[in-house]
Amino acid sequence: MFVSSPAVHPVEAPPPTDPVEQPRGVLMKDLPGMPGTLGGLGLGLGLRLAQFVFAGIALSVMASTDDFPSVTSFCFLVAAAILQCMWCFSLAILDIYALLVKRCLRNRWAICLFAVGDGITATLTFSAACASSGITVLIDNDLDLCSENHCVSFESATAMAFLSWFALSPSFLLNFWSMASG
Amino acid sequence: MFVSSPAVHPVEAPPPTDPVEQPRGVLMKDLPGMPGTLGGLGLGLGLRLAQFVFAGIALSVMASTDDFPSVTSFCFLVAAAILQCMWCFSLAILDIYALLVKRCLRNRWAICLFAVGDGITATLTFSAACASSGITVLIDNDLDLCSENHCVSFESATAMAFLSWFALSPSFLLNFWSMASG
Repeated sequence: MFVSSPAVHPVEAPPPTDPVEQPRGVLMKDLPGMPGTLGGLGLGLGLRLAQFVFAGIALSVMASTDDFPSVTSFCFLVAAAILQCMWCFSLAILDIYALLVKRCLRNRWAICLFAVGDGITATLTFSAACASSGITVLIDNDLDLCSENHCVSFESATAMAFLSWFALSPSFLLNFWSMASG
Repeated sequence: MFVSSPAVHPVEAPPPTDPVEQPRGVLMKDLPGMPGTLGGLGLGLGLRLAQFVFAGIALSVMASTDDFPSVTSFCFLVAAAILQCMWCFSLAILDIYALLVKRCLRNRWAICLFAVGDGITATLTFSAACASSGITVLIDNDLDLCSENHCVSFESATAMAFLSWFALSPSFLLNFWSMASG
């Protein structure tokens, strides 16, 4: 029997010095709420859920009108809202997993991927919201045709798309900041 | 006579270690083209001039049509193009001055100001371009009313506004990157 064999009881081994896993306390080096920290994970998860909810409301309100396919910008808004829902849902699942296993994503490539994806999604959502708001302002203020259009639905969906973009911008800026400074 | 007095000839003193003034050679620490370097100054000046020219063309083409004030989005585009022209012209003057005196702007607050101003200007220009493109697509594709509107002028002005935003985005991202990593 080889009693001198190493790692007979792996449970009692010293904790590995894994740079990915961080202690739960406040790290002086990191700003609180940055994407690499556990506090940032909670903040990021809240932002992701807000983005998902706002994009989902925009999608459902716009899709509930029967004449949105006749305007190209409204179709673009629906497509952008679907894309944003999928992106935010995936990242929210990832955040929940990271919170459950209490591991932070400090991988540089992952943060780079998140920043690029956030940037593309935010640009698409913002452009769709701006195009839709141009149309709604034209219908409502300039032509005064609200009696024969679903102005309230169009404006609500546009406002929700803007709110979704507002919630997405901090995620993008934080990820980009973390990518640049990390 | 105190011959051992220090700094009798201040002209022959060792060169000061001023962190603002950098040598003209390539610095290994800096990426070429970053806002703090002289190569970055030339790149930034070119970008500023491109932004100014594109925004000026968008402004003049849109203002040359007689019915643009009847649509709110087109008025917004004109206002955003005026703002962008003023912003880019000011920063181009600053870049030319920095190139003439061969001093780089490494001040953290200046870069922060440039990044915030670029971000606000880029967002305004992009939103105006998106709103105008929503209107032009509605007029051209969905309603087919180009015979009684200045479709070509509207579309050219929108395209120029988009090009101006394309030229503004690298400036914003470089300044933001420099702010985060500096």
